[in-house]
Amino acid sequence: MSKSEYTKQFIVAQTAPVFNTKGYAGTSMNDIMSVTGLSKGCIYGNFENKDEVALAAFDYNHNKVNEHIKSRIVATDHAIERLLVYPHTYRNYFRYPFLQAGCPILNTSTEADDTHPQLRARAVKALEFWKTSLENQVRRGIARKEIKAIADPAEIAVIMISIIEGAFMQAKLTNKTKAMNIAMNYLEKIIMDLKV
Amino acid sequence: MSKSEYTKQFIVAQTAPVFNTKGYAGTSMNDIMSVTGLSKGCIYGNFENKDEVALAAFDYNHNKVNEHIKSRIVATDHAIERLLVYPHTYRNYFRYPFLQAGCPILNTSTEADDTHPQLRARAVKALEFWKTSLENQVRRGIARKEIKAIADPAEIAVIMISIIEGAFMQAKLTNKTKAMNIAMNYLEKIIMDLKV
Repeated sequence: MSKSEYTKQFIVAQTAPVFNTKGYAGTSMNDIMSVTGLSKGCIYGNFENKDEVALAAFDYNHNKVNEHIKSRIVATDHAIERLLVYPHTYRNYFRYPFLQAGCPILNTSTEADDTHPQLRARAVKALEFWKTSLENQVRRGIARKEIKAIADPAEIAVIMISIIEGAFMQAKLTNKTKAMNIAMNYLEKIIMDLKV
Repeated sequence: MSKSEYTKQFIVAQTAPVFNTKGYAGTSMNDIMSVTGLSKGCIYGNFENKDEVALAAFDYNHNKVNEHIKSRIVATDHAIERLLVYPHTYRNYFRYPFLQAGCPILNTSTEADDTHPQLRARAVKALEFWKTSLENQVRRGIARKEIKAIADPAEIAVIMISIIEGAFMQAKLTNKTKAMNIAMNYLEKIIMDLKV
């Protein structure tokens, strides 16, 4: 890796939690300078503008979540166990640095939906990727006769995402895990009901 | 109403949709001046600072949602019908000016959770109010033998809020109503299953 590549990655890794916490509009060039300890000139030497740092920071946060989920999923085999990875991960969100400030998709979406088209496009793609992954897990489970054949992959994906994101909002807003635990218990019941 | 009271209310009504769309950090004093057609001096003559306008704008947006829901609820009697008011309202969010830019609690929460304590306190209070209203509707339904006695008011409230907010995020982010419709169909099934 070149020194320039290394500096870029350093800037992204340092600023990713700040963007996820303060939001795009709420994160300033001063925040980026402060958290990296680098000069404005150095940051502009590696990124065109704040937008470019924000987009790279979103990708960084989203990849961290995906890598974690993926590593847990490939460690299990049964389709029901694979779906249960999601409530198990999200009910413990406060244990993972990349989830402590909230879900990157949720945090980005409410801010970017009307104001920042490129960031919005990233969040849309991330949401689509999540939805498709869940649908594929359900289809695989039906094919393997581990999930009931009447299960609707699109419905299960939307409901899982809705319950996780809605509960995450409540947990982050109240700084309490109660709503998340109630919601993840409920989601686990929904998943267990899919079992053949 | 005094002229000053009228001007204050005018500023709040005009800026409320802007704050709900662009967020707190994303709304500038220029936006407030532009949407009201008033000078900076006039705005500062009525509000201490942008924070004060933002808080009043949040209350305005939240009250609009509440008034709508309340008017629908008092028009029905059966507990199941009352709970169904929520999916009926949220699946048609694009018809209501106060919901077109998204749910004020959701929009405010993801931005304010880590950065703006007063706005966060408002959103926490609004969420608590919503949760308590739902719990009371369920308790009333159980007492009237319209809702099954085994129903758990706290669980139902958290799940309803989670599904609505999570689906709202998806609908707003993708600019498509598909996820909202799937989620509201599912929520209606959950509510109907509570019926005695």
